[in-house]
Amino acid sequence: MPNKNINQLKSQLDFIVEVDKMKHIYRQTLLIDGSRRENDAEHSWHIALAAMILKEYADFPINMEHVLQMLIVHDLVEIYAGDTFAFDVEANKKKYEREQLAADKLFSRLPNAQGVQIRALWEEFDAMQTFDSIFAASLDRLQPFLHNIHTNGHTWKKAVITKKAVINRMLPIQTGMPLLWEWVLAEIEKAIQLGWIKE
Amino acid sequence: MPNKNINQLKSQLDFIVEVDKMKHIYRQTLLIDGSRRENDAEHSWHIALAAMILKEYADFPINMEHVLQMLIVHDLVEIYAGDTFAFDVEANKKKYEREQLAADKLFSRLPNAQGVQIRALWEEFDAMQTFDSIFAASLDRLQPFLHNIHTNGHTWKKAVITKKAVINRMLPIQTGMPLLWEWVLAEIEKAIQLGWIKE
Repeated sequence: MPNKNINQLKSQLDFIVEVDKMKHIYRQTLLIDGSRRENDAEHSWHIALAAMILKEYADFPINMEHVLQMLIVHDLVEIYAGDTFAFDVEANKKKYEREQLAADKLFSRLPNAQGVQIRALWEEFDAMQTFDSIFAASLDRLQPFLHNIHTNGHTWKKAVITKKAVINRMLPIQTGMPLLWEWVLAEIEKAIQLGWIKE
Repeated sequence: MPNKNINQLKSQLDFIVEVDKMKHIYRQTLLIDGSRRENDAEHSWHIALAAMILKEYADFPINMEHVLQMLIVHDLVEIYAGDTFAFDVEANKKKYEREQLAADKLFSRLPNAQGVQIRALWEEFDAMQTFDSIFAASLDRLQPFLHNIHTNGHTWKKAVITKKAVINRMLPIQTGMPLLWEWVLAEIEKAIQLGWIKE
């Protein structure tokens, strides 16, 4: 392999090694058995699989390759920016700037064109302006919702959350997988009855 | 949603909840920083991302959607069958039967056609007879190889492994990403010099 290509390969392998740090970025969500918090690598895998399983509920044509790629990279910037608790209003105010700096640092490790391409996937996911990214976002909201249902509303109780805030957070599901919306609303009502979510 | 469809959705959501157990299936591989063993969910995410990053080294046309889907599901049966250490000859003798039973149990939780489809992805991955599955297997071999390089040959030393056995394990890379083969062989020679792999 010529030197130029060897250097390119090495920067790609270094990137793969660097992103191992995702396994140390812990979210607020508990694992289903409640034993510990979930990390970003586990979460990203879980929602990619969920996208495959729930594809039929997408309300518009989606490109599964593109959806999976977005879900796999959507949290990478948290390696440097940290996880921002979805229900922490203050922390979310500075999230954008923090994550842009993290993206500069992380994606510049890749060969130029590839760094741009991976960053574009993350930005598309975050902007939620395309069918694929709305469907992807639905999974990113649905999975922690399922975890909350199975862990006595752990992050809802932690944030002392209202019904309005939970519904707001779940809205991408209404657009992305409307057939699930009725089920989501019914589960929210149950969680209110159980005292996990405030009316 | 009609009752039939509600039941289908519920079996799919139950499946997504059940596979959370992947986060408790620990492999022999250490995380890059050596702090603990890696679990199957983390590993599956990591090799899916690696496939995206190293796509250009595939020696034949690949279908990335198909590759990602295989990588996401390739270890699911270990939820019931457990992780089998690649270098444990005895344990690998009964692996096939153990994993078939696990597959029956796991994939039957899904709606029929979908269970068949997900199982087929796993079986294709395991058989390594298609371009996509050979490329996918290359990533499944490369990632723990990278982890070994960064953790003083942890699983190589654990198995008291020979050069021949490591090369044998890495062979899918020679077919799937031949441009990387020279680099793999050079790293194996370094590991022999360091006493991590036996000559």
